[in-house]
Amino acid sequence: MALRLDILQTDGRARRGELTTPRGAVQTPLFMPVGTAGSVKGVTPDQLHALGAQVLLANTYHLMLRPGADTVARLGGLHRMMAWDGPILTDSGGYQVFSLAHMRTLDDEGVTFQSHIDGAQVTLTPQSAVDIQRALGADIIMQLDECPPGDAPKSKVAGAVARSAVWAQRCKQRWLETDAPAQALFAIQQGGVHVDLRAESAERIVALDLPGYAVGGLSVGEGHDAMLGVLEHIDGQLPAGKPRYLMGVGEPRDILAAVQAGIDMFDCVLPTRNGRNAQALTWTGRVRLRNARWADDAGPLDDGCDCYACRNFSRGALRHLFMAKEMLGPTLVSIHNLNFFAQFMAAIRQAITDGTLAADAPRWLERMYPNADAALPDESP
Amino acid sequence: MALRLDILQTDGRARRGELTTPRGAVQTPLFMPVGTAGSVKGVTPDQLHALGAQVLLANTYHLMLRPGADTVARLGGLHRMMAWDGPILTDSGGYQVFSLAHMRTLDDEGVTFQSHIDGAQVTLTPQSAVDIQRALGADIIMQLDECPPGDAPKSKVAGAVARSAVWAQRCKQRWLETDAPAQALFAIQQGGVHVDLRAESAERIVALDLPGYAVGGLSVGEGHDAMLGVLEHIDGQLPAGKPRYLMGVGEPRDILAAVQAGIDMFDCVLPTRNGRNAQALTWTGRVRLRNARWADDAGPLDDGCDCYACRNFSRGALRHLFMAKEMLGPTLVSIHNLNFFAQFMAAIRQAITDGTLAADAPRWLERMYPNADAALPDESP
Repeated sequence: MALRLDILQTDGRARRGELTTPRGAVQTPLFMPVGTAGSVKGVTPDQLHALGAQVLLANTYHLMLRPGADTVARLGGLHRMMAWDGPILTDSGGYQVFSLAHMRTLDDEGVTFQSHIDGAQVTLTPQSAVDIQRALGADIIMQLDECPPGDAPKSKVAGAVARSAVWAQRCKQRWLETDAPAQALFAIQQGGVHVDLRAESAERIVALDLPGYAVGGLSVGEGHDAMLGVLEHIDGQLPAGKPRYLMGVGEPRDILAAVQAGIDMFDCVLPTRNGRNAQALTWTGRVRLRNARWADDAGPLDDGCDCYACRNFSRGALRHLFMAKEMLGPTLVSIHNLNFFAQFMAAIRQAITDGTLAADAPRWLERMYPNADAALPDESP
Repeated sequence: MALRLDILQTDGRARRGELTTPRGAVQTPLFMPVGTAGSVKGVTPDQLHALGAQVLLANTYHLMLRPGADTVARLGGLHRMMAWDGPILTDSGGYQVFSLAHMRTLDDEGVTFQSHIDGAQVTLTPQSAVDIQRALGADIIMQLDECPPGDAPKSKVAGAVARSAVWAQRCKQRWLETDAPAQALFAIQQGGVHVDLRAESAERIVALDLPGYAVGGLSVGEGHDAMLGVLEHIDGQLPAGKPRYLMGVGEPRDILAAVQAGIDMFDCVLPTRNGRNAQALTWTGRVRLRNARWADDAGPLDDGCDCYACRNFSRGALRHLFMAKEMLGPTLVSIHNLNFFAQFMAAIRQAITDGTLAADAPRWLERMYPNADAALPDESP
């Protein structure tokens, strides 16, 4: 078994666990920084280690198109290429095919699309998605799934549930018959915001008895409450002894609710994308560093933060770096934001250990979201 | 005395020294990474320390326009703003006024120009150049000088020599009458490629008995041999006991010749600019990392290099980062190039100590410049 989850403590439905991988044990719930094209934008592996990153995510869609899975393999695999010796998870490419690629042709066999980079025609099947992820060499790999848009009619979502379940079976088949470094295959639940479809999807993929399960098709515009409506059933739908991964969710409020519903793993580009946009996340909300009010501010970005940026640079200095378009601004605020997520997840784990999550969560939310009705929106990139 | 140079060893006219500053002692000859706008592009202060950077340079012109010298002062000064506790040198702004700014009006009092950032009209005088550098707080500050273009007629160069000498005197006056943290003022020799003007310029500024002297107006298109023609007289023109700084020169071949002529200090954007352009410097020449031949190359950029990039990333991985426009590519190759310069200067210092520079230099040049007649040109940015 390439992956083992030990549940160390529960607090309500929240779980404090240790996930043992071929590359060491990591602590759950955890947040995975995203290295879309094989690099967490602007941050070195050393800096990621120092800020407490445990598992990185890389995108199969981007890597299969450039530099190509074979090239990654010739460069020694993804860990060697990224210079990251901790665990890595790759998605299957499905999500990006459905959100980024042009001129898709979708049938039961797979999906054919035009590369957004050079227009080349590429086919991704459940089998090839596994083969490609074998070549990349991540520790956790994902099934190919169909990802309908957030506003798809229920019939289309139902079709995606059925097709994704069939594809999960085919991925498992291919995964079992290929001989490669120990990699744990996760299936993905679909079903949009429809409770009955979510239940059906879960039932079909759980029957495959895979090492882990992901919840897909959320954070696509349905809103916090609709997301919660799905997540509140997760604990009963997915097996207790296996890791549960909520894909693409990174808003702290959503993470907190999802942990309380029994989710163990998260990923999102939010900390690095906001870092590049001069938005810093803190326990008391977002700091927009381009704001002129910080120009002469000699204090740290966040008094309570121990990250490299907060220990060394003032708000005024960080603002200057962004105004002068210096690369160091995005790097430093990305480091801060990733450190914030690591600290946030550590606080969540501690609260579960202490049995205080239900009491801590509303206090944290009140500080982070002073206007309780509004999610703090991102500035456009 | 804010600055003291101890000559530890000589080898021909080359000098191995220790320069003691209020922020510690540094070893000469040395190369100063350039932090134009208060940041060495893409590289953190921690990374600069790790790769052996000793002194950083920052540009008064850029900083006075943005964020402004007063803002830098309110943020605790340049060291605090840049998070660099080692020595910093600031230029006077003169060079950039003459190369970047528009609509200059030049007279004996100073130079008035339009900011290239917002079009604001700004005046820089010898006195204000000192005041601004007082506010920035660098350890070594430069006089305001007139920098004629490389193709200026001799009469214009002669005028610049005279005016720069007068301005050096005014800078000294202002420097003596202002009470501020210990800062060492350097005067700048001008004179283009004209030996008589260089001699006149040196005589006039050396008479001022300042803590150090710079050679300006070279590396402006005159070519390697013409530069050498000027430098061969430097040892007789500038005082032996004070540091000599050749401004803006960074081609390794030029550095080597200049050290052999008696120069102690260098600065250049070459390592970081080339780093952003995917060009790595090595002892055996430049590696152009965008070249398709490196796509599947799993070996390090430079076998003999101990920098963070070479210890962790393959040529293929670095090429991929540039092809995918990932910020980490420029950061890693900038680190490599700065490390190369630090190692190159350390090798020069060791050769002076061993008395072998005259023998080592041609061997190094043969490896670095396989085509002896051609400087390796930079790719355009």
